[in-house]
Amino acid sequence: MDTLTRLETTIQQRLVADPGSSYVAQLHARGLPVMARKLGEEAVETIVAALSGTREDLVGEAADLLFHLTVMLAEKGVPMGEVMAELDRREGTSGLEEKASRSE
Amino acid sequence: MDTLTRLETTIQQRLVADPGSSYVAQLHARGLPVMARKLGEEAVETIVAALSGTREDLVGEAADLLFHLTVMLAEKGVPMGEVMAELDRREGTSGLEEKASRSE
Amino acid sequence: MDTLTRLETTIQQRLVADPGSSYVAQLHARGLPVMARKLGEEAVETIVAALSGTREDLVGEAADLLFHLTVMLAEKGVPMGEVMAELDRREGTSGLEEKASRSE
Amino acid sequence: MDTLTRLETTIQQRLVADPGSSYVAQLHARGLPVMARKLGEEAVETIVAALSGTREDLVGEAADLLFHLTVMLAEKGVPMGEVMAELDRREGTSGLEEKASRSE
Repeated sequence: MDTLTRLETTIQQRLVADPGSSYVAQLHARGLPVMARKLGEEAVETIVAALSGTREDLVGEAADLLFHLTVMLAEKGVPMGEVMAELDRREGTSGLEEKASRSE
Repeated sequence: MDTLTRLETTIQQRLVADPGSSYVAQLHARGLPVMARKLGEEAVETIVAALSGTREDLVGEAADLLFHLTVMLAEKGVPMGEVMAELDRREGTSGLEEKASRSE
Repeated sequence: MDTLTRLETTIQQRLVADPGSSYVAQLHARGLPVMARKLGEEAVETIVAALSGTREDLVGEAADLLFHLTVMLAEKGVPMGEVMAELDRREGTSGLEEKASRSE
Repeated sequence: MDTLTRLETTIQQRLVADPGSSYVAQLHARGLPVMARKLGEEAVETIVAALSGTREDLVGEAADLLFHLTVMLAEKGVPMGEVMAELDRREGTSGLEEKASRSE
């Protein structure tokens, strides 16, 4: 099983766990706006790491970003597999066409 | 092969393609700051979709976000596998400990 | 009258204008989530300009950011003067205390 | 003197103060990437407050955003007056023309 699928399963279980024992459960208790804020903050940190940080910073921030994206999708009940299916669908188109098929 | 791995391979090939034939090659020609901007914009759109959009919007924006994250990592020469390894490493820790191990 | 106050007055008038004649009226017609997205995009562009762009880029992006912040506050019916009053209030506190008084 | 001008003067003085006594001096010691990160985080929080928070949240987050924008401009040696002059310059153009004059 690949990493994101395993992470998603873990997060789905922790969302409904006791907030005292899990960071993910705490995020669930604080609600979607806090999760959205975290996702945005990690995206900002990923950008800053790419432009001004070390390679290690970038790896860590990209992991944080994927973590919080997975949390937010789980909270919204959207399986990561649907997002992957959307990426696969676009993969069928190529070159400059791919751009037109994406929301810009 | 999972979707992100396949996407990464495609992107690595397109980064060095003719900018006239590939959106990814155009991003490469425009440089890392433009890629960083795209990543940030997609993160913002993902947040707004999660808080105010439809489920379909969220799937599309999350796909855009993963696409541009993969582009930026490829441009920086950081394999997505390193980011996944970092997520796996954290998976070993659990509950509230996981929080302390992440950059906040 | 200072620039932001004048800009705010202009924006308040344009919000209710014909969308065919005003960009601000178009934003109003598209709604708050689009305004929020614009604000986020301009913030990302301001960051990227500060880290990787020219001084001229930074001036332009910061102006865009203030423009879209003013639009969003006007849409929400929050006078810029209230935000300035909040900044003035904090100005009373100083040094390290200022940090504690802000939401972190 | 208006609020942003006064805030800018205070921040310019604190940037070169002892980091032990001023939050702004601490930001200066940590450097531009940290300031950029703070600006991005406050923009995200402003968006989330506008879409999902109270009016009071929005006032507070918009104040944070203006504070960190002022810090970053001061660090880069760009007077807020230049940004205001750019906004004034655009004010001369109107309606749909204003859009074309801005970087999109």
